[in-house]
Amino acid sequence: MTGAPARSTATRERLARAYLLRVAEPPAAALSAFVGRHGPVAAAAAVRSGDCPERVRDETEARRDFDRAEEDLAAGERLGARLVIPEDDEWPAWPLLCLDLATCRGVPGVAQPIALWARGEPRLDESTQAAVAVVGARAATGYGEHVAGEIAYGLAGQEFSVFSGAAYGIDGAAHRGALAADGVTVALLGCGLDAGYPAGHVVLLNKITEKGGLVLSEYPPGTAPARHRFLVRNRLIAALSQGTLVVEAGRRSGARNTATTAGALGKVVMAVPGPITSAMSTGCHELVKENRATLVTSLEDVVENVGKLGVPLPEKARPRRSTDRLGPDALRVHEALDRREGKSAERVAVESGVSLGRVRGLLPELELDEFVERCESGWRQAGRRRARQEETRDRRKEGR
Amino acid sequence: MTGAPARSTATRERLARAYLLRVAEPPAAALSAFVGRHGPVAAAAAVRSGDCPERVRDETEARRDFDRAEEDLAAGERLGARLVIPEDDEWPAWPLLCLDLATCRGVPGVAQPIALWARGEPRLDESTQAAVAVVGARAATGYGEHVAGEIAYGLAGQEFSVFSGAAYGIDGAAHRGALAADGVTVALLGCGLDAGYPAGHVVLLNKITEKGGLVLSEYPPGTAPARHRFLVRNRLIAALSQGTLVVEAGRRSGARNTATTAGALGKVVMAVPGPITSAMSTGCHELVKENRATLVTSLEDVVENVGKLGVPLPEKARPRRSTDRLGPDALRVHEALDRREGKSAERVAVESGVSLGRVRGLLPELELDEFVERCESGWRQAGRRRARQEETRDRRKEGR
Repeated sequence: MTGAPARSTATRERLARAYLLRVAEPPAAALSAFVGRHGPVAAAAAVRSGDCPERVRDETEARRDFDRAEEDLAAGERLGARLVIPEDDEWPAWPLLCLDLATCRGVPGVAQPIALWARGEPRLDESTQAAVAVVGARAATGYGEHVAGEIAYGLAGQEFSVFSGAAYGIDGAAHRGALAADGVTVALLGCGLDAGYPAGHVVLLNKITEKGGLVLSEYPPGTAPARHRFLVRNRLIAALSQGTLVVEAGRRSGARNTATTAGALGKVVMAVPGPITSAMSTGCHELVKENRATLVTSLEDVVENVGKLGVPLPEKARPRRSTDRLGPDALRVHEALDRREGKSAERVAVESGVSLGRVRGLLPELELDEFVERCESGWRQAGRRRARQEETRDRRKEGR
Repeated sequence: MTGAPARSTATRERLARAYLLRVAEPPAAALSAFVGRHGPVAAAAAVRSGDCPERVRDETEARRDFDRAEEDLAAGERLGARLVIPEDDEWPAWPLLCLDLATCRGVPGVAQPIALWARGEPRLDESTQAAVAVVGARAATGYGEHVAGEIAYGLAGQEFSVFSGAAYGIDGAAHRGALAADGVTVALLGCGLDAGYPAGHVVLLNKITEKGGLVLSEYPPGTAPARHRFLVRNRLIAALSQGTLVVEAGRRSGARNTATTAGALGKVVMAVPGPITSAMSTGCHELVKENRATLVTSLEDVVENVGKLGVPLPEKARPRRSTDRLGPDALRVHEALDRREGKSAERVAVESGVSLGRVRGLLPELELDEFVERCESGWRQAGRRRARQEETRDRRKEGR
């Protein structure tokens, strides 16, 4: 930045990072660490001159003469996008910390991004405060899209941001579900913000930014989509959310890759089951079988797993039959009785195989609890009506 | 048996156990232990006279005057059934041992049966040597019945006996699947063998015995079905098989009870997932979430889990893409290349972001492995045909 002495530090840092973002194909572990040590301006100068450690040179040598930082920032502005850099208040330093920790532990390919291109109103850090990634197969089934949409809708309704990758299938259904609940949804792309990819989701991406969501990418404007970029992008989906939910995934899929990365980053990984006859659920089932993901079957499960603090979990509604809490003898006595005709204690003893003494002790207990009643000819089961009243009373007791 | 001094010991034991089976409603833990200590003949005499420990008296007092042993054995004979007793060679002592162990550990309601009524040709002990229980909801879905039938068919084809409870839904589909493979299937009833229950499965039960299977019950002829008897019966399904597979189950169901019992008996418990939108899969999903069952999605999974010895497992067919084993740089170089047009190493370096030196090293390596090829204008991706040849060669190398 030698030619621009009048520029503010902030501008120089942004220009330096824009340059570095284009010079190195992410994830650039050595460069990322180099920038961390020396700051973006000095690091950019060193990279440009080639006067940098060999590993940094390896990552930057091929494109180091491509200084299009000014153009990129201008192009971003035309797209309504900003370059969010670690020096900005909205940089999500805390969620991205897991990338450094994983890199230190030797996990490959999860280096920090140098900066992130962002389109949309919300502050990036705020949108990651309570965030769940909902990802899955492009060739999703109707079942998978339904589930993704419903869970994303529910998450958005509970103030979670829904992160996904803007692909067809599950990703699209997740974004749409969050939008339908007027929630915040964040799309992470594996190409430039202007790539118009996937073509059928250009309208969806515009809608996301118009309706209070974010579209993010670490790739400069003009970068074309590529398979390796989607894999690289997946680490950001995993890092920026508290947990990753895989709704449908084939045996080999990008969604499984996101799940594996999320696991390596120490994040919660969840998978939705489906019919074993559906190839689109195979990846989810394998994640569970390999203990890489927790099986979840409802919005409540997802919320419980990502553990949003301060939000009380709705108690699970468990259907209960009133005789459930009876002991084995009491159950046998109860079943030996008839609904209409009365029976003597002696007959109940013979039919139930419970000793007469015990039957004589149990019948009044069961009467107290309104399971049985006396009648002219002996004992009989109490009517259904009573059992139902009893259930209602119980629920009231339990405050439901 | 004082009135029959001429009878053989075997007959006296059988009569004593027939008497005890009717006198005590199973599971009769105290009686079972008492018979184990004193033998059936002495135990029966003690029970009949009332001169026995209080806990045994509690279990037998109500019916101790009902001596219908002779009639029961005659009724069994008319039904084509035999009373299998622990003194018989075919008694499945080894699988039933888990009931004693669990009872010792304090698991309630899992006492040894006093004897078992059996209809059908196979020896009971042999039918339990490699056995899997396939159980599930009565109100099963088409999906559940399909899966139960297919897995039972496959198990029978691999010489496993298929145990189940003869109920509508999953149980019936499991029995039918095993029959279709000409395998051994065993139905355990919660009523007498002559109860004709469930009514719609009388034909199925006859078919099971005609086609080399077994129908079993610990209830004497004439015993009516009852809810508590199905729960008590479930312990035998669990005990007599190496593992229990739950195919579909509502949140509360007998199948869940069988699974829980199987777990308490130290047996393998497996559950098949299904759509989270299906109430009939809820019980299976809960078993997995509560770590009470292992998720299984195929016949191979089931066989692997019950661990039949001596049968080699079919290797899982994993689809593989030929570029999968490339490192990140090689993958980027490969993706920067075109299928038709050639590119120079310099251009590949810029487009992939990999340093020129590394690109120059990688291209010949990739060429050796037939991922890329030289052409007039530089380097391009090798044709699909080659990649396919390469996969074939690999498979040959791996001996598949």
